[in-house]
Amino acid sequence: MEKFLNPESVALIGVPSRTGVGAYNNLEMLLRFGYKGRIYPVNPKVKELCGLKCYSNVNEIPDVPELAVISVGRDRVMDVLLRCVEMKIRRFVIITQGFADADEQGRRLQKSFSELARARNVKIVGPNTIGIYNAFTGFTTAFVELKRPSQPPPVTVVTQTGVIHGAVDSFCEDGLGKAIDLGNMCDVDFVDVLEYLEHDPQTKVIALHMEGMKRGKEFVDIARRVSRRKPILVLKTGRSKLGAKAVLSHTGSLVGEDVLFDAAFERAGLLRVMDTMGFKDGIKALLHLPPMRGNRIAVITTTGAVGIMAADIAEELNLTFAKLPPSLPELILRGTPGWIQLNNPVDIWPIGMIRGKFMETYETTLRELVRSPDVDGVVGVAIATKSRIHADLDLVERVGRIQAESGYKKPVAFWLYMDDVARASKRFEGIRGVACFPSIERAIKALYFCYRYHILSSQAGPVTRGTRA
Amino acid sequence: MEKFLNPESVALIGVPSRTGVGAYNNLEMLLRFGYKGRIYPVNPKVKELCGLKCYSNVNEIPDVPELAVISVGRDRVMDVLLRCVEMKIRRFVIITQGFADADEQGRRLQKSFSELARARNVKIVGPNTIGIYNAFTGFTTAFVELKRPSQPPPVTVVTQTGVIHGAVDSFCEDGLGKAIDLGNMCDVDFVDVLEYLEHDPQTKVIALHMEGMKRGKEFVDIARRVSRRKPILVLKTGRSKLGAKAVLSHTGSLVGEDVLFDAAFERAGLLRVMDTMGFKDGIKALLHLPPMRGNRIAVITTTGAVGIMAADIAEELNLTFAKLPPSLPELILRGTPGWIQLNNPVDIWPIGMIRGKFMETYETTLRELVRSPDVDGVVGVAIATKSRIHADLDLVERVGRIQAESGYKKPVAFWLYMDDVARASKRFEGIRGVACFPSIERAIKALYFCYRYHILSSQAGPVTRGTRA
Repeated sequence: MEKFLNPESVALIGVPSRTGVGAYNNLEMLLRFGYKGRIYPVNPKVKELCGLKCYSNVNEIPDVPELAVISVGRDRVMDVLLRCVEMKIRRFVIITQGFADADEQGRRLQKSFSELARARNVKIVGPNTIGIYNAFTGFTTAFVELKRPSQPPPVTVVTQTGVIHGAVDSFCEDGLGKAIDLGNMCDVDFVDVLEYLEHDPQTKVIALHMEGMKRGKEFVDIARRVSRRKPILVLKTGRSKLGAKAVLSHTGSLVGEDVLFDAAFERAGLLRVMDTMGFKDGIKALLHLPPMRGNRIAVITTTGAVGIMAADIAEELNLTFAKLPPSLPELILRGTPGWIQLNNPVDIWPIGMIRGKFMETYETTLRELVRSPDVDGVVGVAIATKSRIHADLDLVERVGRIQAESGYKKPVAFWLYMDDVARASKRFEGIRGVACFPSIERAIKALYFCYRYHILSSQAGPVTRGTRA
Repeated sequence: MEKFLNPESVALIGVPSRTGVGAYNNLEMLLRFGYKGRIYPVNPKVKELCGLKCYSNVNEIPDVPELAVISVGRDRVMDVLLRCVEMKIRRFVIITQGFADADEQGRRLQKSFSELARARNVKIVGPNTIGIYNAFTGFTTAFVELKRPSQPPPVTVVTQTGVIHGAVDSFCEDGLGKAIDLGNMCDVDFVDVLEYLEHDPQTKVIALHMEGMKRGKEFVDIARRVSRRKPILVLKTGRSKLGAKAVLSHTGSLVGEDVLFDAAFERAGLLRVMDTMGFKDGIKALLHLPPMRGNRIAVITTTGAVGIMAADIAEELNLTFAKLPPSLPELILRGTPGWIQLNNPVDIWPIGMIRGKFMETYETTLRELVRSPDVDGVVGVAIATKSRIHADLDLVERVGRIQAESGYKKPVAFWLYMDDVARASKRFEGIRGVACFPSIERAIKALYFCYRYHILSSQAGPVTRGTRA
């Protein structure tokens, strides 16, 4: 797999003759993306493209490229494959669609690719794929322009779609390090990729978008092994009747009973998420936060109403509210009237206001909660505003101090609100073990993900029960 | 109620002596917010505050203010109330907390406010409230700085918390026109406010945050009447056991069985949402989109994978995929290979790419779907990117044209992706009847909200069945 993600040389067979707006030219995109390896475009209609010599036939390439990317019409794919195999090219990405995603003839063609791969010992990604994205080395097979972060995060997605490569902001807020679209999976499948990712130092969190599964037993075995070392989350789509039908005409995968996937994912130690938001929040939680070793959470809120919302979602997720540390009342209630109550969720506003020491009260409370052996994870609700009259409400340094003291052992998730959330979130997330989420419910759910990952990664055998996320 | 939201004169009793950072001075906030009426600060410790004369006692005010805002310590509230009533002040907002949200004594005190209101025919909002927010006139009782949009939207929220006033971006993307925090509801309750909003021309969408309900029968009656003319959505919190317990110590409301609220909301024609995201998306859908007159949706997607995600969520929400217009294949499939399939969700990418007319194909398809008598609402998936090499993918003008032709009768929701979503969303939302949502699931759910509102507002009697949102 490494050579798929980081080839020293690549042939682009069937590259469009045009470049620029509306051309969707994968050579142009590859150059813009910053690839430094040798490129051999193949297109008989043009002699040169983007300053590179164009070959009219793959046989003319004076090299054996480590990878061939094929985007010719579907009826010519097999011919191209055979020529390449003769040349000893061993890796292929077939971009072309119209195979198991289309009709009977397409299914037959795709079957012949699978057979060729086995018979000639070559590896094929696709067909019907946008292919590879590697922000570390600047390699991509995509025909649309994708963002390349200057500091790629150690997040790899393995998909059956190209949309996640492009819709990074919707699916993975921190961006992507690597992405592999398996498309119709005629050959290379999730098992192959997981085997590679197990030892890939650039991958710390793995997220799968799956429509269908091949080699179920092998998948569960490798996923179980990998998930003990690196969190794997999975968005399995096509769980509805309508969705299952749509999968057939997308990647041609057979879907089967959704409950079987639940069982397989549990055994494999995979965190299943049910929608794109769970995918996004799950990746963020697993990337920024440590596992949560129990289900006892604490919430500090600036407003009682949000504490109630926290309780509603926590109960749904089978999280419980931790007993407050016995030290806390003495520390923050001294001098407050007797009617002030101290519960979990901790409504810090009346206490802080009456004491006239809002931020000190927040800091003390957070510190005690993070320290407490009865608390497994904390959610904080805090104000993030540009208003200069509320410059006293900036919590970042205090949180940083607490995290440094406590050794980053417990997840701390925040829901920030008011008019400076984006900027403040980045500052909070500069602190190790801290992540921010756009609603109280999603902050609570982030802790749930951390707890689920702890359970999934620490179990000896199959899990006995689980909740969908 | 009008005078609560737009008083000509206001007394601020118990205004802090300090101003600036950390003071939470409601006089200062009111002036910064842009209020133009007469203000009478009352604080015996200072002679002047923010350039205004300070009165040491409410009796010294040479006027009968239309509203008094009280934020003295809880033991002094009753005394202040009585003095004000003697002066013929008739409207009160009690900011102070520590009543039914606190202990037995607090509950007794609050009961005496209720009795006073009835006996002396005055109206009280609160206690334990941030109070009033009116972006139209620039009036607020808040002690934190709140944003005031230059063009307030016709959205009013009625809450039992101040957090929504402040966390506008989290709860209501378009901002707020008016907000009323009822706090512990010792007197003014949801019934009073709905009676006012029924005929308020500045309110087109009403959103309630409710912890407890008073006067159930009156509430259902007025809500049913109002909801036929203006959509009302409700986020009822405290539905869990933990949440119900937390409600008791927040606004002192008794929660009761959650299923009873479901029944009451159904009868009242209220759209119930289950979390803050539903609150936000529900307001947006009801503000921007027309009701959806049936449950038959169509989806245009740039990627098959997202069509499958759409199918999964649509089935959960009991939406069905409409039959495609018979005119469509002739219009967009001519010249494409036979293996191209046309389903709903419509995967427009292969068709558009093979034709070399991506945008024309998108426009034609959207037009036919919006026109079709078999389609009640449409979700579009589209790319929004700053990449100049994809400048051909800008869909806004085409969508604007289609909406203008079709008379804005059906909801059209978009999920936009890639790196220019925020800017593109604003442009799309400049088109009447169009709104954008941050995931495919939320775009589908927006249509569901439009359908639910149609059902709820058109029913003659109680609804026979409903799904939570």
